[in-house]
Amino acid sequence: MQIAIVLFDRFTALDAVGPYEMLGRSPEDEIVFVAERTGPVRNDRGSLSLVADRTLADVPAPDLVIVPGGPGQSDQMGNENLLGWLRTADATSTWTTSVCTGSLLLAAAGLLTGRRATSHWLALDVLKAYGAEPTGERVVTDGKYVTAAGVSSGIDMALTLLGRIAGDEHAMTVQLLTEYDPQPPYDAGSPQKAPADMVEKWRARSRFILT
Amino acid sequence: MQIAIVLFDRFTALDAVGPYEMLGRSPEDEIVFVAERTGPVRNDRGSLSLVADRTLADVPAPDLVIVPGGPGQSDQMGNENLLGWLRTADATSTWTTSVCTGSLLLAAAGLLTGRRATSHWLALDVLKAYGAEPTGERVVTDGKYVTAAGVSSGIDMALTLLGRIAGDEHAMTVQLLTEYDPQPPYDAGSPQKAPADMVEKWRARSRFILT
Repeated sequence: MQIAIVLFDRFTALDAVGPYEMLGRSPEDEIVFVAERTGPVRNDRGSLSLVADRTLADVPAPDLVIVPGGPGQSDQMGNENLLGWLRTADATSTWTTSVCTGSLLLAAAGLLTGRRATSHWLALDVLKAYGAEPTGERVVTDGKYVTAAGVSSGIDMALTLLGRIAGDEHAMTVQLLTEYDPQPPYDAGSPQKAPADMVEKWRARSRFILT
Repeated sequence: MQIAIVLFDRFTALDAVGPYEMLGRSPEDEIVFVAERTGPVRNDRGSLSLVADRTLADVPAPDLVIVPGGPGQSDQMGNENLLGWLRTADATSTWTTSVCTGSLLLAAAGLLTGRRATSHWLALDVLKAYGAEPTGERVVTDGKYVTAAGVSSGIDMALTLLGRIAGDEHAMTVQLLTEYDPQPPYDAGSPQKAPADMVEKWRARSRFILT
């Protein structure tokens, strides 16, 4: 299985690296980071670059597409080179997936119209405006489209998908070897669980960030 | 606070990127990836490079040191350039930390002798052989030394540390914005929880991998 993870300026690193670490470990798998140009791609915080080893054009028909999110997603919403690649890749993919606001790019490419999907909790309204049907679930599967909520949820998305692709035992082995037995020191990881005033503060800010 | 994340050939990407995504978000923070040489550093699977923006020599006195693990750790256990840098950085650091087999490098540098610490579950015996006192906890704090278990545990380590550094509210905000509300589809993320035969198979293999 060929797996392509898409990079663009100001992506969020964990969106990409979380699923990366879980997937593509079978001998017949190839996992490759792709971008419009090869070379280092700078993340949203400016302090980390991941290297794209291949261009989008080099990898036209991956079996699995993973689109991370990040603030830089907004600059890509009208990038027909990227959106066109997503449409073409999706035409032959087995799975088309996203993490965080990566789902907005899938939606902008027209791939999520009328489909159940998710995104970062602050971006669900935007996802709806692009024609998808947002849900509050952490991982949403609608046919071959698998979308994950914010940033860290890509790990859960990838393990869920891995179970579908390679079976439960393989997925559990990866969970064991990556010691994914999460024990967060707080229980504030969703808008339902975090303090209400904290959630409201960020909702207010996001009106400026996302529109 | 200056935060240095150390890269070396065949490191595990999530070990580094998990803590990275959680830490260093205050305006006065600087977070930097360092290695012996600047430029791309290839990970354990060969399919991803992260870029080291500075050399070890460029960043002699970070406030917080993060050492990831990965199979490449074994090649570094006698690298006096790296081990010497760890000792020097540790002499003035506020926190010295590791994820996965990164703790073996701290131990090889002599920094964990007699200290409670952890590592990947398959490496706890090696950690002991290097003079530390391994525990089975996911995140272990002994003074200024904070060590995490395998791969994904660096996220929990970093959030725990962030609470100590910047307060609970800041750490909870980061948890909310990274939507870290883990919902793994299986409960196989530790040797206590995974099927016993799976654990035993990997313990048997690790005798060859780690010795």
